[in-house]
Amino acid sequence: MNVTVLGAGAWGTALGLLLDQNEHQVTLWGHDPARLDEMARERTNDRHLPGVVLPDRWLYQPDLTRSLAGADTVIMAVPSVVFRAVAARMDGYAGCVVSVTKGIEFSTGLTMTGILEQVLPRARLAALSGPSLAMEVARGIPSALVAASRAPEVAREVQQLFHRPTFRVYRSTDLTGVELGGALKNVMAIAAGVCDGLQFGDNAKAALITRGKAEMQRLGVACGALAETFSGLSGLGDLTVTCFSRLSRNRALGERLGRGETALHALEHMHAAVEGYPTTKSARELATRLGVEAPITDQVYAMLYDAKEPARAVRDLLSRDIKAED
Amino acid sequence: MNVTVLGAGAWGTALGLLLDQNEHQVTLWGHDPARLDEMARERTNDRHLPGVVLPDRWLYQPDLTRSLAGADTVIMAVPSVVFRAVAARMDGYAGCVVSVTKGIEFSTGLTMTGILEQVLPRARLAALSGPSLAMEVARGIPSALVAASRAPEVAREVQQLFHRPTFRVYRSTDLTGVELGGALKNVMAIAAGVCDGLQFGDNAKAALITRGKAEMQRLGVACGALAETFSGLSGLGDLTVTCFSRLSRNRALGERLGRGETALHALEHMHAAVEGYPTTKSARELATRLGVEAPITDQVYAMLYDAKEPARAVRDLLSRDIKAED
Repeated sequence: MNVTVLGAGAWGTALGLLLDQNEHQVTLWGHDPARLDEMARERTNDRHLPGVVLPDRWLYQPDLTRSLAGADTVIMAVPSVVFRAVAARMDGYAGCVVSVTKGIEFSTGLTMTGILEQVLPRARLAALSGPSLAMEVARGIPSALVAASRAPEVAREVQQLFHRPTFRVYRSTDLTGVELGGALKNVMAIAAGVCDGLQFGDNAKAALITRGKAEMQRLGVACGALAETFSGLSGLGDLTVTCFSRLSRNRALGERLGRGETALHALEHMHAAVEGYPTTKSARELATRLGVEAPITDQVYAMLYDAKEPARAVRDLLSRDIKAED
Repeated sequence: MNVTVLGAGAWGTALGLLLDQNEHQVTLWGHDPARLDEMARERTNDRHLPGVVLPDRWLYQPDLTRSLAGADTVIMAVPSVVFRAVAARMDGYAGCVVSVTKGIEFSTGLTMTGILEQVLPRARLAALSGPSLAMEVARGIPSALVAASRAPEVAREVQQLFHRPTFRVYRSTDLTGVELGGALKNVMAIAAGVCDGLQFGDNAKAALITRGKAEMQRLGVACGALAETFSGLSGLGDLTVTCFSRLSRNRALGERLGRGETALHALEHMHAAVEGYPTTKSARELATRLGVEAPITDQVYAMLYDAKEPARAVRDLLSRDIKAED
């Protein structure tokens, strides 16, 4: 199959490697023609996946419209803040579109496939999500993910596209749950990073993950997702890896906050999109609108957008009344 | 209050520190009088909590019966394999007994308070469980746990005994669920350690945690526990910390297996009880008896007791058919 990957960051590149291994013809588009040229010439993506050699057979296409010509499937791996704009340039593409971007649009509260439903109404839509540090996937270290689509046959199509012995793909029809799990876990990862920056231990982080998963699930269910999806790979699985791994960017942002950096200073010094930053704002808005209690999200928001001191944010979280576990 | 702690390992010692900070009079009993003497003299427990200074006010009592005289509450912190034998020596003690031991008795399938129900029928029973690396608790780094008892007033009593600003205690009446979460997570931690020993990454470990939590919950529900307890601090919380922390002994056992050591060789070189070893055998027996599918437990059992090669065990786990996520 001909598969076009939109977005030349770490995740788009790592998925392109997998698709190549599965004998698909990959065309890569990125917003920066000079970087695409460099990738084609050097056969590496040194900024995002240092040391990983890219396949000979890849095509690099700096023109978005041309990159879609003949594509059976399009993988959307661009940052959430430009997702709608990129989708709008896809000329009503009507094939299979797989979002691997994790975010929530602030103005609408929509997930990424929610945006695609509006912009590309004729496309077959799916999302791929789960615990997936790009560098591990690029190195062929085993991972397991979920392909989600409201249409079971589209979920199966995406499963078959990506599945490999070291990249196990499960299926789900709870598209909303799978996408919200991936998006909301980045908010919790920032909180986990703050714990690291304040030199809290693993006990506290485990407690945070437990409460964080419950908070994600509350908000997700209010949005129409199934509760059990948040106990799956795209919820709990992705949450644990992002909160514990040294490789997680969202966790790293939190760690910088915990050490006393401002959010803007920290973001300036990070090389890639940190999705938890815009997602925190969107999640807080969504929780407010739906009347869902989201104390961790509230505190992460206060640290990121209102310069609240991390030690105070954590104290405010901890000082809630003791009670039965719910 | 007068509180007697039975068991001078890392966890008994750390809880004794907390109780002292909460102004309770602590009496410590351990099976080895020479070690108790040493702790009293040196005011440290160097083997289990190096660098931590023990309080002046502690009493050390090598005679079990005498240690219980005047005790309002007894904390049971002895290894699961000797739990019944120690309880049998408590002369029908009828106060409050809190088990902090995580295990399942092989011959009966009982949790630790299940044993206490038989041996000390007049006692008020509870368990305290959750993500709690002893060294972090001893250092006053924030943690959150669950006090569980079938009697809500006993759960509240235990909550009040331990609760501190840095040691938050929630309550539950699902005693079986809280105890099984703590016990079964050690099986999963061994599997997580194997992943580490085989140099798998965080993606794989997150997938394992996700599947492991589902497996724990299946078995727990078959034993009469509430499903939601496994999403709480004593289930998910304890599971994540044990699978990810460098400080976890059960994870360390798995890591040694993954690197090629035999189980017995690895256990000989570890200083403390590794509860996951007997628990794996008990959990497998329980799953078989109840007809619950437990593929991770089965593979951990095969590695520990049948010398199955870790790489083959993992391959057998991964090669199960791809399917919808359940």
